[in-house]
Amino acid sequence: MPLRALPERRERPAIARSARAMASSTLREVLALTARPGVLSLALGMPAAELFPTAELAAGGAHEASSGAALQYGVPLTALKRQVVELMARRGVRCSESEVFLTSGAQQGMHLAARLLLDPGARVLVERVVYDGILVVLRGHSPEITALPSDPDRGLDLEALEAALATGPRPALLYVIPEGHNPLGVSLGAAARRRLVELARRHRLPILEDDAYGFLRYDGAALPPLRALEDRWVLYLGSFSKILAPALRVGWLVVPEGLIPALSALKHAADLDVTTLGQRTVSHFLASGALPAHLERLRAGYARRRDALLAALAARLPSAVRWTRPEAGMFVWLELPRGVDTMELLRRAVEGERVAFAPGRAFTASGGPEADHCLRLCFANASVETIEEGVRRIARVIEGALAGSRGRA
Amino acid sequence: MPLRALPERRERPAIARSARAMASSTLREVLALTARPGVLSLALGMPAAELFPTAELAAGGAHEASSGAALQYGVPLTALKRQVVELMARRGVRCSESEVFLTSGAQQGMHLAARLLLDPGARVLVERVVYDGILVVLRGHSPEITALPSDPDRGLDLEALEAALATGPRPALLYVIPEGHNPLGVSLGAAARRRLVELARRHRLPILEDDAYGFLRYDGAALPPLRALEDRWVLYLGSFSKILAPALRVGWLVVPEGLIPALSALKHAADLDVTTLGQRTVSHFLASGALPAHLERLRAGYARRRDALLAALAARLPSAVRWTRPEAGMFVWLELPRGVDTMELLRRAVEGERVAFAPGRAFTASGGPEADHCLRLCFANASVETIEEGVRRIARVIEGALAGSRGRA
Repeated sequence: MPLRALPERRERPAIARSARAMASSTLREVLALTARPGVLSLALGMPAAELFPTAELAAGGAHEASSGAALQYGVPLTALKRQVVELMARRGVRCSESEVFLTSGAQQGMHLAARLLLDPGARVLVERVVYDGILVVLRGHSPEITALPSDPDRGLDLEALEAALATGPRPALLYVIPEGHNPLGVSLGAAARRRLVELARRHRLPILEDDAYGFLRYDGAALPPLRALEDRWVLYLGSFSKILAPALRVGWLVVPEGLIPALSALKHAADLDVTTLGQRTVSHFLASGALPAHLERLRAGYARRRDALLAALAARLPSAVRWTRPEAGMFVWLELPRGVDTMELLRRAVEGERVAFAPGRAFTASGGPEADHCLRLCFANASVETIEEGVRRIARVIEGALAGSRGRA
Repeated sequence: MPLRALPERRERPAIARSARAMASSTLREVLALTARPGVLSLALGMPAAELFPTAELAAGGAHEASSGAALQYGVPLTALKRQVVELMARRGVRCSESEVFLTSGAQQGMHLAARLLLDPGARVLVERVVYDGILVVLRGHSPEITALPSDPDRGLDLEALEAALATGPRPALLYVIPEGHNPLGVSLGAAARRRLVELARRHRLPILEDDAYGFLRYDGAALPPLRALEDRWVLYLGSFSKILAPALRVGWLVVPEGLIPALSALKHAADLDVTTLGQRTVSHFLASGALPAHLERLRAGYARRRDALLAALAARLPSAVRWTRPEAGMFVWLELPRGVDTMELLRRAVEGERVAFAPGRAFTASGGPEADHCLRLCFANASVETIEEGVRRIARVIEGALAGSRGRA
């Protein structure tokens, strides 16, 4: 899109090649489509605003903001780093304040981790189908990407990872979401997590572990993240966006202490600091002791929505469609029969049924067609009634597409 | 510092060369020195927290935060872009909402502009003595830097600029602060501004105009920024950090509309969005109509502090010291006799007199010794009494250093 929009080069400053290479994310175009008034959207990976602890955050923010110091530039808040250490302990992770680096959300954590670790031409491992936020980060670095297959029911294919590690240059980074994968919805099992960190140690493979959904597990006991098993090769990424509210813009990394000075320099260049007010508002909320009960409410609310989505899919969708059954996170991944193009399906869904989902192509590391027959639904950001109505509409669009392809066949 | 702190390479992920190249900023080390309890600091370029419109921002923020939508992810607020257009008109700039790009503060604006315009090895023009925030951004790109001389009383040397443009590859960027230069305190005259944009047009030279202090002029009528004279080659950088409060983390760029899609992609990769709550809080304040009166109070307060600083310098400093007399911004630049090392002076100042300033070396594009005999004082972030006491202490340290150097001579 930026390329098409370019007027003649003489008219204004020229865009650098690396910036032109960052084609706009497909999801951003989807955002534009789904933002049309009246469209019922299961497309975007946003948390439920109605489940935010709004009153508590507003009161806490107002209390903090009443001192000018909270509105000033500031250094990372020691109290908040200490609270993150406590929070990590609830995930089974032992770390110290000196290993915690505060960020402006998890996306900035990815951006800084990539700047920290990637030399030009570095080799990076990602899954073939993966969160598009890491893909836009990587595009800015033009690394050599090795895309690994995943099983929608078991996650990252460790046989394929081991084979990739056996050949080619040593990768500078593997990006994984072990819990509540975005977009697949899958979580890695305990044995796979152990094997993954063993591979990391053996191959000196830095892993960026995105645990944005780590506190949102609905079935069974939560498994410890990779960082609980390995503290040198795993860089852990956490966020308050999904468990408190995105507009606070506070996330964190847990990394070996020796990486912190370089991260600080990169953060300074990027945007100076994490908003003092956001840090204090989060810290105020955590200090109140309200988080455990809030997380219980959140998990109960999201589990209800997930169950409603899975029930509606089972009731409405034709048997040719398969989908994942997430134990954590916000997403269900649907595989339609090959030959159905979900970008085209989305246009028909928005125009014909006023319903939206995220098409598979938004999440392919190659940008290619291998997930063109897939789509992602987010159950977090819609009521049970909206989910049920949304699935009714999506089912009609899919039925239409399948009837059309049968008609053509 | 990161290099010294490196444990053996086998112990943890290796830092990329470009990240290692970003040596930590001297100012960050100064921050550590000046943060010692009891040190009276004129070192950092922070606004006065006691002059923030704290009650209004806290009330506005609480009002906005009471709706979950303000705590959610969000797109750039159209209402705020419209208000920025009105604000720009007060600086004599005509622009449209489609040319306004919201950022997480001016530092992010610099970071994104550099990502937008700089190919590897691009040539960049900066002044020899310049804001260290642009230097940390540039270090991440390893450009070919041409450093231009400035006159402390007249600003950027346009003869030298013209000579630099006559030879070598066409620069991808010139960074300037025409109003209230950081650290020099100087503002460019009207004729110099006209000549600068003529050079930009003739040489197709993109200029990043940092106008963070554009609303903080204390004497005479404010001059229009470069963007008022030229809308294609000037990328304008504004910030609410110095006129409202830094923790809101809201700034803006005004750029040719064709650059906006690429900036959006870069911003998406960097940290997704500008905090919705910050945007709404700023917009709420601007909509209340309180800004003009607030700016009057701010200018009156800062002018009083500047006058106190200049009077104290005149009363206390030995005649061998020269300093600038700023009409705008937050800074006064002192030149001591050559041979005095202000990094060493700072250590003595902090330890012996418990007073701090920013040493000249923090601001040299080369990182070299050409400003080792200089220092920067910020008058914005200290009361008149603190300024007077601070100058008394600094005068004693300088007297001691000059006596020492006379003793050695």
